[in-house]
Amino acid sequence: LKALDVHYLCIKDFHLPFKATAADIRTFHQKCADHGVTGYGVGPIYFKKDEARRYFDYAKAVGVKVLVAVPYEDGVVNGKKQRCASRACCEALDALCREYDIRVAIHNHGPDIPHCFPTGDSAFEMVKDLDPRVGLCLDIGHNFRAGLDPADSIRKLHTRIFDMHVKNVTFDAKRNLARPMPRGDMNLWSVVQALCEVGYTGCCSLEYESFPAKGVKPGVKLGDVAESVGYFKGLMKAAEG
Amino acid sequence: LKALDVHYLCIKDFHLPFKATAADIRTFHQKCADHGVTGYGVGPIYFKKDEARRYFDYAKAVGVKVLVAVPYEDGVVNGKKQRCASRACCEALDALCREYDIRVAIHNHGPDIPHCFPTGDSAFEMVKDLDPRVGLCLDIGHNFRAGLDPADSIRKLHTRIFDMHVKNVTFDAKRNLARPMPRGDMNLWSVVQALCEVGYTGCCSLEYESFPAKGVKPGVKLGDVAESVGYFKGLMKAAEG
Repeated sequence: LKALDVHYLCIKDFHLPFKATAADIRTFHQKCADHGVTGYGVGPIYFKKDEARRYFDYAKAVGVKVLVAVPYEDGVVNGKKQRCASRACCEALDALCREYDIRVAIHNHGPDIPHCFPTGDSAFEMVKDLDPRVGLCLDIGHNFRAGLDPADSIRKLHTRIFDMHVKNVTFDAKRNLARPMPRGDMNLWSVVQALCEVGYTGCCSLEYESFPAKGVKPGVKLGDVAESVGYFKGLMKAAEG
Repeated sequence: LKALDVHYLCIKDFHLPFKATAADIRTFHQKCADHGVTGYGVGPIYFKKDEARRYFDYAKAVGVKVLVAVPYEDGVVNGKKQRCASRACCEALDALCREYDIRVAIHNHGPDIPHCFPTGDSAFEMVKDLDPRVGLCLDIGHNFRAGLDPADSIRKLHTRIFDMHVKNVTFDAKRNLARPMPRGDMNLWSVVQALCEVGYTGCCSLEYESFPAKGVKPGVKLGDVAESVGYFKGLMKAAEG
């Protein structure tokens, strides 16, 4: 993060485990602060209705105001047990958001997982009548793979977008073919323009997924991350004028 | 270059020595072609009037139409022997450009070397009455360090700009403090806009200069290069609309 001049982090449990003590959390925040980084949210976390409170407690203990989540219930799809988007769990979030004054940002996947938030639009439909603190972490890559224009989705859903996973992908409904941002099929300039247009004030989290060539083991490649961060900053600079 | 999806290369002698044989040159171009890369020019090469022909022969043998050059003559500055910008050498280039139909792009340095093209503007002044094939490789970083706005320079000098060294720098008249493109003090968005405005059709070569922290040894860092390439591509994407 320091090498790339990045100052905001969405905290995953591999950064800070759910069972972290108050002392662990202090140490973690100090480490971030030493590198000029602010942890602005936690997640994504998958949880069921009766587990929700524990992750609000975690978010509260960590001291963030955004909890990126996938609220699910067990279901059976094509004869297999699967995690399915849960309206009952969203309703539980409605009360918890008010109690904790923490926003929930539901993270969508793509059309290959149709039973568990295949688009940001489907998450929006499920929560639009709930407390305004129940909203979305829009993953533009997955949304695009569902055939939706990410700039249109931002314009349509923006009142409930609290966080974003930004990336580029090769268009494929079945597979998540992530690409360094300058390549892939999405027009990220139109995404940045839409974010400006709606006055988005949240973060744009680069979700890095490795882009290995055929036969190459996945792994984090600094070059891919750096190229993507640079590209998105270039677009933001141009939008700023 | 392959990892960063970059397809044009200005060939330095460390890529292809001046004494390369026809077979060496063929091998080199084949290697480039295997990676989707075109060597579009050679240089920068420092030379005096009586050495000029040899580098035109080199450019011709390599098969490029742009020779990036610093035409100098020996002089004495503050009691020291120095390479000084040479009008006599530029006049020799005038004839050679016509004879070989190869364009010369004079590379400028910064205000710390006032006797040897401290700005693109000074090179322009020296060649503006010569054959239109005698022009500039505008180094925007050095020009900026001389207090000139690079977008203004592009608008003013564009009829003679055949190549560009792009980079970012921290403003400092005395030292060349190169920075990854998203940082530094130059507005590269205004540079890209100016290039579009004048219809620039040449290459923008990323000139990588290492950005070591205090006490760290210089060296190529893929992250810095990738971030810079990504940033400039983001600006170009935005300009393209």
